[in-house]
Amino acid sequence: MTASTDILPAAEFAVIHAEVQQFYAEHMQLLDSGAASEWAATFTEDGSFAPPSAPEPIVGRKALEAGVRAARAELDERGEAVRHLFSMIAVRPLPDGALKVRSYVQVVNTPRDGEPKLSLMCVCTDVLVHERGTLLVKERQVTRDDRPSANR
Amino acid sequence: MTASTDILPAAEFAVIHAEVQQFYAEHMQLLDSGAASEWAATFTEDGSFAPPSAPEPIVGRKALEAGVRAARAELDERGEAVRHLFSMIAVRPLPDGALKVRSYVQVVNTPRDGEPKLSLMCVCTDVLVHERGTLLVKERQVTRDDRPSANR
Amino acid sequence: MTASTDILPAAEFAVIHAEVQQFYAEHMQLLDSGAASEWAATFTEDGSFAPPSAPEPIVGRKALEAGVRAARAELDERGEAVRHLFSMIAVRPLPDGALKVRSYVQVVNTPRDGEPKLSLMCVCTDVLVHERGTLLVKERQVTRDDRPSANR
Repeated sequence: MTASTDILPAAEFAVIHAEVQQFYAEHMQLLDSGAASEWAATFTEDGSFAPPSAPEPIVGRKALEAGVRAARAELDERGEAVRHLFSMIAVRPLPDGALKVRSYVQVVNTPRDGEPKLSLMCVCTDVLVHERGTLLVKERQVTRDDRPSANR
Repeated sequence: MTASTDILPAAEFAVIHAEVQQFYAEHMQLLDSGAASEWAATFTEDGSFAPPSAPEPIVGRKALEAGVRAARAELDERGEAVRHLFSMIAVRPLPDGALKVRSYVQVVNTPRDGEPKLSLMCVCTDVLVHERGTLLVKERQVTRDDRPSANR
Repeated sequence: MTASTDILPAAEFAVIHAEVQQFYAEHMQLLDSGAASEWAATFTEDGSFAPPSAPEPIVGRKALEAGVRAARAELDERGEAVRHLFSMIAVRPLPDGALKVRSYVQVVNTPRDGEPKLSLMCVCTDVLVHERGTLLVKERQVTRDDRPSANR
């Protein structure tokens, strides 16, 4: 993890940095609102997501969308809201124009009439790419801090 | 929630994005330090705040300031510190130059000699406007994740 | 806490703001991954850190590095991951080019196979300076919200 602006002028990095922060804000608000297909559309067509709980990565928008729908149905049944909060978003521009981004993720669940709970502390490592002027997730790996495999 | 930079060049969006992040940082640090009148001055003269617990919005700086003083007195009596942590700040520039901003808010309370507690998980939707070169809150709506009316 | 962009044009502030956000992301990821010497190198040679628990500030990279190693050994013994999450990062450029930055810090600990816990809520006040194009911490003061000396 060396200075990430090394391969870009500072002013260009600032533009990318704002774009990435905005991307995650919208991306996670879509997820938490249950907008499954809109969320899936923020991955590339062949985008992959390796969550900590699945044995194999989830690949492609259809599968990603189905995953969100299943998770949302479970939350609705329990009457819970969920929020994914990214922080400490470290952006590393790669020579090919893609971005490697490593972030912390707090997952907060709140039952109706109950207290919010920090359910999971995770680390998310993404490869983001531009397609038609928009950022998309090409690859995502998430590790949980409570698991031995945790990505320190 | 489409790409928010659509109506602005990316470089201009980056400037606004930084300004908004800085605005919330200062705005919330004022609130949490009990600087009631300084905090109220970060709303427009007729600024309104619809908190989840009040039946009617609080309107105008005098009323906003009084609200902070009352909340602060209660916290002081209990010997508690409070922090409002905004995250996933999604900025949408509107055609008239105002900004619609939707964010997540963690409210953390810490009693003296006690443990910090995530008391509330909220969603804040603001309309921010520029006046004399400074951002101000014109309208604020906050929902709590534990309430049926929660703004997903 | 007045508008922090006062002494800089907004576009320049945006560049600095992105740089600061990126700095903290990398800085804290180094700390939490136990990269003690790399982390210490993000302070100036004579950098000082006044943590809430120490009677005297820790001064200089060697001492800072030793502090991280000791903390990491303790965490490893307990089998815990730790994350330091900065938020509400308020950046104030000083006339001499240094930056005064006041931020909130959540410290989250997660035991192996256990639940994440918000252990501490702190406020961090830094003086950051540029050396050879890179930001470094020159002075750091941290207060804990559970202590009477809490920096509101």
